[in-house]
Amino acid sequence: MARVVTTIARTDAAICDGFAALGVATAHEAQGRTGLLGSRLRPRQSGTTIAGTALTCEVPPGDNWMIHVALEQAQPGDILVVTPTSPCDDGYFGDLLAASALARGIRGLVIDAGVRDVAQLREMGFPVWSKAVSAQGTVKETLADVQVPLVCAGALITPGDVIVADDDGVCVVPRRTAATVLETARRRAAMEEEKRLIYMSGRLSLDVNEMRARLKEKGLGYE
Amino acid sequence: MARVVTTIARTDAAICDGFAALGVATAHEAQGRTGLLGSRLRPRQSGTTIAGTALTCEVPPGDNWMIHVALEQAQPGDILVVTPTSPCDDGYFGDLLAASALARGIRGLVIDAGVRDVAQLREMGFPVWSKAVSAQGTVKETLADVQVPLVCAGALITPGDVIVADDDGVCVVPRRTAATVLETARRRAAMEEEKRLIYMSGRLSLDVNEMRARLKEKGLGYE
Amino acid sequence: MARVVTTIARTDAAICDGFAALGVATAHEAQGRTGLLGSRLRPRQSGTTIAGTALTCEVPPGDNWMIHVALEQAQPGDILVVTPTSPCDDGYFGDLLAASALARGIRGLVIDAGVRDVAQLREMGFPVWSKAVSAQGTVKETLADVQVPLVCAGALITPGDVIVADDDGVCVVPRRTAATVLETARRRAAMEEEKRLIYMSGRLSLDVNEMRARLKEKGLGYE
Amino acid sequence: MARVVTTIARTDAAICDGFAALGVATAHEAQGRTGLLGSRLRPRQSGTTIAGTALTCEVPPGDNWMIHVALEQAQPGDILVVTPTSPCDDGYFGDLLAASALARGIRGLVIDAGVRDVAQLREMGFPVWSKAVSAQGTVKETLADVQVPLVCAGALITPGDVIVADDDGVCVVPRRTAATVLETARRRAAMEEEKRLIYMSGRLSLDVNEMRARLKEKGLGYE
Amino acid sequence: MARVVTTIARTDAAICDGFAALGVATAHEAQGRTGLLGSRLRPRQSGTTIAGTALTCEVPPGDNWMIHVALEQAQPGDILVVTPTSPCDDGYFGDLLAASALARGIRGLVIDAGVRDVAQLREMGFPVWSKAVSAQGTVKETLADVQVPLVCAGALITPGDVIVADDDGVCVVPRRTAATVLETARRRAAMEEEKRLIYMSGRLSLDVNEMRARLKEKGLGYE
Amino acid sequence: MARVVTTIARTDAAICDGFAALGVATAHEAQGRTGLLGSRLRPRQSGTTIAGTALTCEVPPGDNWMIHVALEQAQPGDILVVTPTSPCDDGYFGDLLAASALARGIRGLVIDAGVRDVAQLREMGFPVWSKAVSAQGTVKETLADVQVPLVCAGALITPGDVIVADDDGVCVVPRRTAATVLETARRRAAMEEEKRLIYMSGRLSLDVNEMRARLKEKGLGYE
Repeated sequence: MARVVTTIARTDAAICDGFAALGVATAHEAQGRTGLLGSRLRPRQSGTTIAGTALTCEVPPGDNWMIHVALEQAQPGDILVVTPTSPCDDGYFGDLLAASALARGIRGLVIDAGVRDVAQLREMGFPVWSKAVSAQGTVKETLADVQVPLVCAGALITPGDVIVADDDGVCVVPRRTAATVLETARRRAAMEEEKRLIYMSGRLSLDVNEMRARLKEKGLGYE
Repeated sequence: MARVVTTIARTDAAICDGFAALGVATAHEAQGRTGLLGSRLRPRQSGTTIAGTALTCEVPPGDNWMIHVALEQAQPGDILVVTPTSPCDDGYFGDLLAASALARGIRGLVIDAGVRDVAQLREMGFPVWSKAVSAQGTVKETLADVQVPLVCAGALITPGDVIVADDDGVCVVPRRTAATVLETARRRAAMEEEKRLIYMSGRLSLDVNEMRARLKEKGLGYE
Repeated sequence: MARVVTTIARTDAAICDGFAALGVATAHEAQGRTGLLGSRLRPRQSGTTIAGTALTCEVPPGDNWMIHVALEQAQPGDILVVTPTSPCDDGYFGDLLAASALARGIRGLVIDAGVRDVAQLREMGFPVWSKAVSAQGTVKETLADVQVPLVCAGALITPGDVIVADDDGVCVVPRRTAATVLETARRRAAMEEEKRLIYMSGRLSLDVNEMRARLKEKGLGYE
Repeated sequence: MARVVTTIARTDAAICDGFAALGVATAHEAQGRTGLLGSRLRPRQSGTTIAGTALTCEVPPGDNWMIHVALEQAQPGDILVVTPTSPCDDGYFGDLLAASALARGIRGLVIDAGVRDVAQLREMGFPVWSKAVSAQGTVKETLADVQVPLVCAGALITPGDVIVADDDGVCVVPRRTAATVLETARRRAAMEEEKRLIYMSGRLSLDVNEMRARLKEKGLGYE
Repeated sequence: MARVVTTIARTDAAICDGFAALGVATAHEAQGRTGLLGSRLRPRQSGTTIAGTALTCEVPPGDNWMIHVALEQAQPGDILVVTPTSPCDDGYFGDLLAASALARGIRGLVIDAGVRDVAQLREMGFPVWSKAVSAQGTVKETLADVQVPLVCAGALITPGDVIVADDDGVCVVPRRTAATVLETARRRAAMEEEKRLIYMSGRLSLDVNEMRARLKEKGLGYE
Repeated sequence: MARVVTTIARTDAAICDGFAALGVATAHEAQGRTGLLGSRLRPRQSGTTIAGTALTCEVPPGDNWMIHVALEQAQPGDILVVTPTSPCDDGYFGDLLAASALARGIRGLVIDAGVRDVAQLREMGFPVWSKAVSAQGTVKETLADVQVPLVCAGALITPGDVIVADDDGVCVVPRRTAATVLETARRRAAMEEEKRLIYMSGRLSLDVNEMRARLKEKGLGYE
């Protein structure tokens, strides 16, 4: 009854790379403050930003069999997105799976569960965003779906969507809107760059963004 | 109805600097084991200790407007202390606000909520202690109070109080008692320095602090 | 009524050192996926692996007196294992106790509670795995047991058992089975080394481990 | 930019009523163990089972304006499903909104946030499943979408889907498969009724379900 | 060094009784949405509303000695408010203390920690709002302050302030503003009563409160 | 490799019944404030106290197969104690298993995981203490041990030990010390009964237990 969908439309690599240069907060803002995965997903390394296409994988609690199945579906530029069918912190993924994932061109892992061998993963340069770190081993007994739309840490992710991840967390940008969102995101980033210089000069956002009148109207008083 | 109090008495800079040299644990002990903010506030960098005067700011959930208002009230040596009026993990503060805060002489941020752009904040050398990291954007719609006494992560903080923050967390020292507490803290630090040497030599605290008799009296037995 | 047991059988140092070379995940797998302490215990440094013999210590909430008692019982190669008699996040252990512990030959601390002075502990090279970081000071009023079997973060630990700790967390290996488990662990590590090379070459675990037939039999379909 | 979708296809009332007679666990099992909302949603009354069609509503943190908008879209037999755009425990819903909801024929509320006036809601007979109970008031400043597909407590919900809720929690059954799932659910319920009688007689599931051979084959031993 | 303040100004009993008739949500709204204690404090009974004057008591973790001291300070109409000096879930309060509290005229307990004997407390009619239920016993070794201002579950409480508690949680109203807040609260309650009737008739808040124009102006669209 | 131990020594029924009359807090105190299971285990009914002999069962995450195995080992008067080998909130136990358990004479369930059908369990009069309520179904694929010593919610439990459970939580009393602890518990209960009358008369524990001198000596001051 479980299925692996093999005919996935992926977002263009150039679009993914565009998002990797901008990061999570900008992508999130550019699509109307949507797409964030829950903040319980934390980076297990520091200072890494990646973007790529979602390779989605459901796993039963305590069972990582389907990750092995998912690796065969990988294409270079994918990011593996794993979600348990019920909450679980076990260590679904370690250095062996990372070796395989790297060999298949996978850019990183986003998992709403646990990982292990985190020191080795850092050495290998395989970035991970996970809910937990746990050495707890898993079994290989029960099937689940691979490359189907799923909810990971509260966000709906369709295979082939853009995943962006950095020290702030993880964001999904749907494939259909990715090109447009990227344009908006780039404009936003340029604008922010200008604002940064203004703020560094000491000017206040109250003035730059003309907030004083509205604050007064709402009733703000100074004592 | 919301208000910004502009007439704040700040603790002397020299006192703040004194605490920065001693750290959170010593400040906390020196005032009778009080003043700690909840341990849910975690440093978003490693190895930084700061102390400064509290610039307090309330924010509604998902709304960072008042942080913009607060920045105008900043004086060099302040530490921005932000508390939501109801629990919220959104990313209230990012690199633009940090650029502005640095330009205003603010030494760091303590926030019982989320921050974003943490990689950039580290690069900029702007230290942050927060409850969460989240890219979630916020709106600018609702007022709250600035520079009023407030409760942040379980501790009462009055504008102008000393805030000390390091890898152990955050502590507040009320302005009125700060000079006295600093003296006690320095004595304690000196005493601990001596003890450290004694312990490094292998002597036991059981002997150094003469605990054996009281342990026996309480009923401790050796088998 | 509280007691300190002084006649403890410790696992051989060579066995402990063997586990230190293998790490937590391998030890856990080698004994049938048992022995992990709860993932709430997090390393307070990065990239350190240790193994040693458990020196166990119970502490009342907010009271670190018995840690002072425990230090006298230390032998070189021990790892101090502290568990509160009811849940507590206070800062039971800081740089003075670490100075004493280092002088006694203790290799590190595992504590289901809080620690403080974490920056100093890192500088001193004293590794810690704890539930929390908190500067909260503790008292010395109430007795508890030292060197007795106890439950720490959900795992039963007997004095003298092997404790292994790395960036993945903490694992206990009972003294009686430690030699056998170490052998199994070494075989497993060697086997994993081989597999790593195979996976790095791009071969799939589906093939290496011949999973396809069983997946099909369970009903996995490809679309 | 925010929108209210007014052309929603709802599942037939007879199907909803069918699920109300069976409850959450049976619905969840009948669709292959899917559809559960996270267990953080708890009933705020005891012993009530409801089923109805999802009327979905997004709300910003601390802002319940869109619930007022959603009420106009209600049709008798709907269940209001509210999800915040970022996590929030505020009291979005109380006795006034419940009075309005009852008048509009709404059968209950499922909200991944807080509610208030819970004593009054119980008296009024308006059932609620929520993440939190909190009297915290909310503002009316920011728009969000109504009657769009959304993720609530980890489950994807499309307007018009069946929502089933009882003391075990909340489950969604997609409209398109609801009729088929209901049939399966009824068969399952009948079968369970038979099994219940068998187990009450003292017979073991090991025998009834012929588990002994497979247990032995897997390696279970009796000592 | 610890102290018991014996000269406390209490809010008038008539004001307290006024709040008891209105409940937590109304008190909270009437003072500008302030004063709520954190929602981790849950009622340990159902359907009880109380209001009274705060009798405040700090306790060390795992040590309930000061509750015994506080009971002597009680006056009829007080509500005991207990906060640990660092987080603790132990069972500080049980049926014996409740017997004593009832004899002293105390109306209930608000505690940011654990209680025990909850079945007996319900039988005795002594209402409790607590963070946890735990049978864990406590010691009597360490002093703390009684009848001083303190922070309980995130709210500043001064002895003699009004405490209101019901199934929604707990709210504090400062003594100085209590009379004014009560007037506002009563007006609000009367207004809500009117609105309830309007909503029960099926009229929408969109119309009653004339929200449509502003929603449109903000950009809400109907599809 | 998994095993079921069939030769279990159970505590006498009369001793269990003795504890059922006293409850959790008294049992815990009588054995030196030990034996409590973590307060995350909550009763799923109100006002029920039970005591019986532990029938222990380990279960993998998301897999309830071994509960079926455990039921065969039941003897009248047992309490089923289930602990997952890694943390899991799935609904391991529902009305069918309860029907079987009742038929086997089992008095109740203590589980550090989830249960479902809680409304039916209440109707059947089968009491449960669990970490979670969740309808999430489980599989039957992986073995674990039955009737072996295990750690449940932080407490070591040996098959045949006394389990006491009431509205305050769950406590274990080891079989070997159960008779002695029961005697102590009965004396304590009698003593508490006397104290209750004294406190109800309005006398203070400060006087009854002569605390004043020691409080003064420790430095308590009255202002």
